[in-house]
Amino acid sequence: MGGDYAPQEVVRGALLALGENPQLELLLVGDEARIKDELVACHSKSLERITLIHAPAMMSMSEAITALRKKRDASIMRAMDQVKEGRARAVVAAGSTGAAMSAALLRWGRIKGVERPAIATVLPTAAGPCLLLDVGATVDCKAEWLRQFAFMGAAYARMVLRIPVPRVGLLNIGEEPEKGNEQALAAHHLLAAAPGPFWTFIGNIEGRAIWDGSADVVVTDGFAGNIALKTAEGVSALVTRLLKSAIRQGSLRAKLGAVLLRPAFRVLQRRIDPAEYGGALLLGVDGVCVICHGSSKAYAVANAIRVACQALAGEYLEFVRSSSTFGESVKGAT
Amino acid sequence: MGGDYAPQEVVRGALLALGENPQLELLLVGDEARIKDELVACHSKSLERITLIHAPAMMSMSEAITALRKKRDASIMRAMDQVKEGRARAVVAAGSTGAAMSAALLRWGRIKGVERPAIATVLPTAAGPCLLLDVGATVDCKAEWLRQFAFMGAAYARMVLRIPVPRVGLLNIGEEPEKGNEQALAAHHLLAAAPGPFWTFIGNIEGRAIWDGSADVVVTDGFAGNIALKTAEGVSALVTRLLKSAIRQGSLRAKLGAVLLRPAFRVLQRRIDPAEYGGALLLGVDGVCVICHGSSKAYAVANAIRVACQALAGEYLEFVRSSSTFGESVKGAT
Repeated sequence: MGGDYAPQEVVRGALLALGENPQLELLLVGDEARIKDELVACHSKSLERITLIHAPAMMSMSEAITALRKKRDASIMRAMDQVKEGRARAVVAAGSTGAAMSAALLRWGRIKGVERPAIATVLPTAAGPCLLLDVGATVDCKAEWLRQFAFMGAAYARMVLRIPVPRVGLLNIGEEPEKGNEQALAAHHLLAAAPGPFWTFIGNIEGRAIWDGSADVVVTDGFAGNIALKTAEGVSALVTRLLKSAIRQGSLRAKLGAVLLRPAFRVLQRRIDPAEYGGALLLGVDGVCVICHGSSKAYAVANAIRVACQALAGEYLEFVRSSSTFGESVKGAT
Repeated sequence: MGGDYAPQEVVRGALLALGENPQLELLLVGDEARIKDELVACHSKSLERITLIHAPAMMSMSEAITALRKKRDASIMRAMDQVKEGRARAVVAAGSTGAAMSAALLRWGRIKGVERPAIATVLPTAAGPCLLLDVGATVDCKAEWLRQFAFMGAAYARMVLRIPVPRVGLLNIGEEPEKGNEQALAAHHLLAAAPGPFWTFIGNIEGRAIWDGSADVVVTDGFAGNIALKTAEGVSALVTRLLKSAIRQGSLRAKLGAVLLRPAFRVLQRRIDPAEYGGALLLGVDGVCVICHGSSKAYAVANAIRVACQALAGEYLEFVRSSSTFGESVKGAT
């Protein structure tokens, strides 16, 4: 029920996902009557794979997260319950990120050995995907938490993105180990000593290098990561806007060029704009939860459902839960 | 003598700037023989407005900044001397940013009331320029230093960008005052109480909003600011790269479209890519110093010289030096 275009675009995204994946079954959690209306309007053939779960309340964006504890009938809490009680295997949410995170922590708890959750997002680069985390869950980070993020990110890259030995970089303002703020310096030190048997630490990664495919996983705190992600969104939106205006004000030649290039632009935009590409993973909680951008339309919601399916298929959660390396490294560091 | 393409592109940029501005006189500081060779190769008509200052040494990118104290004949130190001794009014440097900053601090010192320097860069937005600072000078920042950056940025926006009452925002991960890490929360509090007579504080600005023209000045620490700037560079480079590849692999239709759109793309790239658009200001030191991106070519060097001329014409430095508001606010805050 959350997000700028709920329930319409969320329902449409769900139907899109069902059409793509014949194995998929979905529970739609929220205001039953409103969801039904949308389903009827869409004339879907996949209705037998949809179960409606009525949740009368919802969390608004402005509501304090502390209100969640008392709001057990909020759609986000009810969705988490479905997984906890074994009726679903993952949650996809398009509403308030803070509410989804708090609900997951309240209902599922953290994976053993993880002190703080992180939100990870897969970015497109010039050479394959790159997982950036944290993009907003934990804004004041200890170096040890960044090490835990590195482990979780590497596990995800290995199990889900199918990169056998992921290269993990630390987001920083220079490549040299002695560059950065106090937190980055401490994290670099810890990461250089930490890599497990299945990932390598390749050192510092500058904001520019996120996009050239130098690293499979880029680790940072939720403040810097969020700034990087939102900046990327902003530049991408600006590029689109400037091109449109160049074309509007431009010559007949530019206008004709734009019409011819439109299909290529569309592909580009879907790769660059996180509102389309997105579907961020909430890592560290003891369950699979994918968070959509609030401005997600049907295509992005379907993409987020695909991300959840991939996380389940890759058995990411089982891998992290059972990883002895993780526990040992944490013990070693504390 | 610094940067990836010195002295060739630096000399060409200097000649480009002289051609554009008949009032301009330039001192080229570095290896006299090598600079002369470049000048001869360029057949310039503006030679009478160039003075060569021989500086036999230079700072390499890998050299520790502490080496600067003993390297008084390094080109960057000699350049700062020209201003200190009244033979020049500003320095433009394309080499190591750290070396330029240290040389400026050593030879010029700080403006009274400023505790730390900041690097400010003018970014293009959908609605005019936006000054982002700090993008890398001071990575661990006290909230009070961010307030000083806000003042300096606002002064620059007023005097040089000619915005009578600049709107200053704080880079953060959400618009609400209670969002952010500890530093951002403290800075928000200080900025909300601080605005001087000529600027307004408009609250938190997300990474996305840097690019839509919501703020004239965006303040942050040198870590987050650098991440934002480099991320923007990376996305811009990726857009160009993806478009090229879409065109290469694309249909005849896409190829034809691209050829027709090429002039519009070129304009766009010059506005987005900081290596072309750039010319960052070192604020807080007691003199005008503009830093070019290390990868600057002639066009970017000429642009940096233009930025220096604008800073001088706007009497930014005189305004900040004489601002009683600044001194009073600092006193009030400490």
